[in-house]
Amino acid sequence: MIIVTTLDATPDDVDRIRERVESLGLRTHLSRGETHTVIGCIGDEEKLDHLPLRSLPGVAHVHRVMKPFKLAAREFAAGPSRVSMGDVEVGGQDLVVIAGPCSVEGEEMILESADAVRAAGGKGLRGGAFKPRTSPYSFNGLGVRGLELLAQARERSGLPVVTEVMDTRQVQDVAGHADVLQVGARNMQNFALLTEVGRVHRPVLLKRGMSSTIRDLLLAAEYVMKQGNMDVILCERGIRTFETATRNTFDLAAIPVLKAETHLPVIADPSHAGGRRELVAPLSFAAIAAGADGLMVEIHPEPSQALSDGDQSLDFDEFREFMVGLQPFAAAAGRRLSVGDRTPARAAVTG
Amino acid sequence: MIIVTTLDATPDDVDRIRERVESLGLRTHLSRGETHTVIGCIGDEEKLDHLPLRSLPGVAHVHRVMKPFKLAAREFAAGPSRVSMGDVEVGGQDLVVIAGPCSVEGEEMILESADAVRAAGGKGLRGGAFKPRTSPYSFNGLGVRGLELLAQARERSGLPVVTEVMDTRQVQDVAGHADVLQVGARNMQNFALLTEVGRVHRPVLLKRGMSSTIRDLLLAAEYVMKQGNMDVILCERGIRTFETATRNTFDLAAIPVLKAETHLPVIADPSHAGGRRELVAPLSFAAIAAGADGLMVEIHPEPSQALSDGDQSLDFDEFREFMVGLQPFAAAAGRRLSVGDRTPARAAVTG
Amino acid sequence: MIIVTTLDATPDDVDRIRERVESLGLRTHLSRGETHTVIGCIGDEEKLDHLPLRSLPGVAHVHRVMKPFKLAAREFAAGPSRVSMGDVEVGGQDLVVIAGPCSVEGEEMILESADAVRAAGGKGLRGGAFKPRTSPYSFNGLGVRGLELLAQARERSGLPVVTEVMDTRQVQDVAGHADVLQVGARNMQNFALLTEVGRVHRPVLLKRGMSSTIRDLLLAAEYVMKQGNMDVILCERGIRTFETATRNTFDLAAIPVLKAETHLPVIADPSHAGGRRELVAPLSFAAIAAGADGLMVEIHPEPSQALSDGDQSLDFDEFREFMVGLQPFAAAAGRRLSVGDRTPARAAVTG
Amino acid sequence: MIIVTTLDATPDDVDRIRERVESLGLRTHLSRGETHTVIGCIGDEEKLDHLPLRSLPGVAHVHRVMKPFKLAAREFAAGPSRVSMGDVEVGGQDLVVIAGPCSVEGEEMILESADAVRAAGGKGLRGGAFKPRTSPYSFNGLGVRGLELLAQARERSGLPVVTEVMDTRQVQDVAGHADVLQVGARNMQNFALLTEVGRVHRPVLLKRGMSSTIRDLLLAAEYVMKQGNMDVILCERGIRTFETATRNTFDLAAIPVLKAETHLPVIADPSHAGGRRELVAPLSFAAIAAGADGLMVEIHPEPSQALSDGDQSLDFDEFREFMVGLQPFAAAAGRRLSVGDRTPARAAVTG
Repeated sequence: MIIVTTLDATPDDVDRIRERVESLGLRTHLSRGETHTVIGCIGDEEKLDHLPLRSLPGVAHVHRVMKPFKLAAREFAAGPSRVSMGDVEVGGQDLVVIAGPCSVEGEEMILESADAVRAAGGKGLRGGAFKPRTSPYSFNGLGVRGLELLAQARERSGLPVVTEVMDTRQVQDVAGHADVLQVGARNMQNFALLTEVGRVHRPVLLKRGMSSTIRDLLLAAEYVMKQGNMDVILCERGIRTFETATRNTFDLAAIPVLKAETHLPVIADPSHAGGRRELVAPLSFAAIAAGADGLMVEIHPEPSQALSDGDQSLDFDEFREFMVGLQPFAAAAGRRLSVGDRTPARAAVTG
Repeated sequence: MIIVTTLDATPDDVDRIRERVESLGLRTHLSRGETHTVIGCIGDEEKLDHLPLRSLPGVAHVHRVMKPFKLAAREFAAGPSRVSMGDVEVGGQDLVVIAGPCSVEGEEMILESADAVRAAGGKGLRGGAFKPRTSPYSFNGLGVRGLELLAQARERSGLPVVTEVMDTRQVQDVAGHADVLQVGARNMQNFALLTEVGRVHRPVLLKRGMSSTIRDLLLAAEYVMKQGNMDVILCERGIRTFETATRNTFDLAAIPVLKAETHLPVIADPSHAGGRRELVAPLSFAAIAAGADGLMVEIHPEPSQALSDGDQSLDFDEFREFMVGLQPFAAAAGRRLSVGDRTPARAAVTG
Repeated sequence: MIIVTTLDATPDDVDRIRERVESLGLRTHLSRGETHTVIGCIGDEEKLDHLPLRSLPGVAHVHRVMKPFKLAAREFAAGPSRVSMGDVEVGGQDLVVIAGPCSVEGEEMILESADAVRAAGGKGLRGGAFKPRTSPYSFNGLGVRGLELLAQARERSGLPVVTEVMDTRQVQDVAGHADVLQVGARNMQNFALLTEVGRVHRPVLLKRGMSSTIRDLLLAAEYVMKQGNMDVILCERGIRTFETATRNTFDLAAIPVLKAETHLPVIADPSHAGGRRELVAPLSFAAIAAGADGLMVEIHPEPSQALSDGDQSLDFDEFREFMVGLQPFAAAAGRRLSVGDRTPARAAVTG
Repeated sequence: MIIVTTLDATPDDVDRIRERVESLGLRTHLSRGETHTVIGCIGDEEKLDHLPLRSLPGVAHVHRVMKPFKLAAREFAAGPSRVSMGDVEVGGQDLVVIAGPCSVEGEEMILESADAVRAAGGKGLRGGAFKPRTSPYSFNGLGVRGLELLAQARERSGLPVVTEVMDTRQVQDVAGHADVLQVGARNMQNFALLTEVGRVHRPVLLKRGMSSTIRDLLLAAEYVMKQGNMDVILCERGIRTFETATRNTFDLAAIPVLKAETHLPVIADPSHAGGRRELVAPLSFAAIAAGADGLMVEIHPEPSQALSDGDQSLDFDEFREFMVGLQPFAAAAGRRLSVGDRTPARAAVTG
């Protein structure tokens, strides 16, 4: 921590500032400039965290030197972490594409979707059982019945299942059915929920909040990790800005910045970032080119009938085509991606 | 709902769009322009909410005509609503100032603070028992012990108590001790929590999220009201923008916009909006001038010792001075505000 | 300037950094922490401005200590500056309301408008001759003919005239006709224009850019002042954010922040900030409560016929009512504001 | 244009609205819903542009149906346009990388830079002679001398030259020396300048403003094109948001959105978007993956000595490595990119 004094700070002010800092066990170091004095604080910066330093007479600015997150910091690990999601590893050389419908709407559609994901080379199945919706009048998911259908889809397809948890009271239930617990953008700073998912033995897929900085995202990951759960996957899904041409503004640069700041794997969600089907491919190709470890993509057997997010969902053929289109970019980025042979006939499920 | 077709939409496309809409029980009305066709949808717009209309071939734009919120809409009530918080009414002619420390840090400080609030003419006591903190390493409140101290402060001072609830599992506990349940900015779209506070018989103070539009805020209020709890107080506390000179950007215009859109009372939180002690007064004066029904202000017996938000807290003398300064603006706005005689001696509490 | 080194900076790195800084005539001061070294730079910080310090091996962060603006800084002047606009002083005890149409559309309307402004107690006349328009197909002003009409309106009404200049080649012409040169939000970082208006003997009304920080605004003022023209009036008119309920987001807090940072007068433009007629009054009352020295308001004899900005313009009766409503807030803020007796009959002009 | 009436609009209100619209030569079409009436306006929408429709009694919302830009719209051209810059075509199959220093600082450095660009496979040379700087105390370019050095570098290297023009009075001079006139982000809505560059026979490279929407950018292009100059290249360079980890927020999705909305070529500037050397490669790879036609990259013979933007400039070796790294992504995107053999020895220039 560096404290810069005001132009009119007195020597007494400076002494009082030093005393406060030193009373917490840190040492201080003075550097007197022509107009300001700079007080360097040496020792455990965390102790200064709840000190309202700018309230002390004579303080002009306070600059933090250390990163506020530790367990999530790149320096904490010997190299990039890999998070296991069933048999699949996120953060290694394989590019991991997770796909599935926004919401689980029924048995047939989720089983079909799982087949389509696997057939096209996807490595995980997403699907919402509990859905956060801006309006209380929108469809908000099948709840526990949705979880059961996801478990059934996993059994059938062998794909690990990612689903959102929105309430501390649901954590055990969701952890009992799913392979990865997703914390959504709107709950990224629901600290009670972060703490609770930190206590279970399930990887957490943490989506960046719409108005969260990269630092906020890493501190949210730190909340989970502080409870002992180190298996956190970060997900860039767009932030809120003045631009209205897209649903959110996809912050592509967050991917390389995160890869430099943390050892945790980083994936992108092009469906929510762009909000339009035709943007899924270019945003995904770009994310991989920028170093993402994977993608989470919304698909639906019949997007125009979807109960949520139909406008941004690919149908099964589009998804397969998308995976094929992704391959050269994965290769250019030095990633492995195997794409399946064909889209399974839709009749297969109901048969 | 108005649907505008693309330049190249075929008559068949238009027919299919109409069929989809009409299949939900609405009527449609065509208006053919030189380049586009406009399809007006007449009837219950809510039924169209989960239809991915833009996914249908031939659809260029979809414009919503009806407001998505109902219970919160101004048209829903005969006039402005008043929300009772103990004996105090928010939304009437009296200007309601709620004040207190960011966090309840101990018995003495919260009792002293309550005295200072009452003495200066404040009408409610705020204080955090459960604190949302960006970093998991920051002080996060005294929990249930904090709730008990707040109840004690209410008994002593007669002031109704406002405190934050962060977890669905805490709602009953908090409702058992406090007069008003605060939902913080970071939880404004924690829909499980909104639903739960909608089920108790306690007014809810709902703070606008950092990246929430005014529409989002009203939809969050709608979540609470849909459960039967109509006593919602809205609070503007600043949004996140590119400007870094202030902690948040105080969206002053949200106050008159909300007053026009909803019957619910609207207050402002100048402490979080500005993030600096010296901005509390100008932001508060402005909020009242713009039509706010009240204010929520952070105070502390000794801001430089505060465990959280010390930089933006007023001390007791500053708070009293602030209340005196507020009076002419309250009068100009046609509001009643009675300011107490003097700050009580701090010794009184411990005596 | 404070330079913080990276975790792995070597003593050689530190030496090289010091040498670079010292080669420019500054002194350095080292403070070695447990993990980082902090290098304080003592002397003329400006010399470091074009040094890419973060490019030097071993540099982690660079913190600026001095403000980058000087002439605009509050410390530069003994007290608040007053800028004379004809006989009117902006920045003193009198609250200065400048009003007029968005664009000068013709002789009758600008003369009528001037009468209405004066009759209601306004102190300056605004009106655009050269109009910046987002679309090249929109009405863009009467040009030099507009300037002549403004001069005529000044002669008739005695009100000083404020009008926008958009091109370095127009500066002499505009300065020949107007009392105050307005630099619009879209040109706030048109540095050639700032330099040119700095060279004439006319006050400059500088509007904050839509994505400009308060610091950017003060640096833009510094551009003008550096040429010798100290008569700069700053104007908050809203910034661009994600909120779409208002045309811009009125950054009310910028007013007290600017009043603390600079000696220059600060006014607000509630018409562009809100973009809607019904927001002009609450935003104006708030601006005055927050310490603004004046306002700039759009009025029009018949807003529904206006060639630009009709949606946010008051008609003459509304303007007079607005001025009456403003008075108690001006008084509460300790400002003088005299409101005229009555709106002149519209016939008067054509008679 | 679609006009939606308020709940309480009277039949007279509706009639008056129709009359206003029809008085401009358009036809109207009514669609009466249960609570609102919708008035479709059929004909030339431009005529409605300066009508303050929302000011008419009974009007609730106004929705535009037609795009406000015409010449820039994709529908205006049979296919993607190609803009010639010397012998080089932007917008065709060849990926065009323009590189060079932020500022022309002297003869040797610009000649060396040109050699390095050409040797590594770059197709254009950038370099600022007139520099927009936020602070008036920063280095602002060599002016006309800079232009002459650029012309000299072109002669030597054969590379077309791109340089910024900031003032209408400089347009002829810059057009006399450069192959492409750059309009910078801060001048994107300097309409006098847009008009002036629209009148010369030189391609224009138009950078998106920091707070400009995609629609604003296309309207700025329309300004240029309306004067007869159809050779406009659009450049995404990041927008201003709350995120401070990067200099700007690179709006990657703007690339595919622009490619769908306009026939004009689109390039990206990863140097300004990220503001940090290490982000140049990932942002560039991503831009190409998302469909960009080219890149503009800052390089410098010795970044740590640069007079501006040193922190985001690559040195010559890094640039060559960057070009090599770009190739597989260009190939994956179906683009041609030939990378030179080696970086020329620096001595070559001075020899």
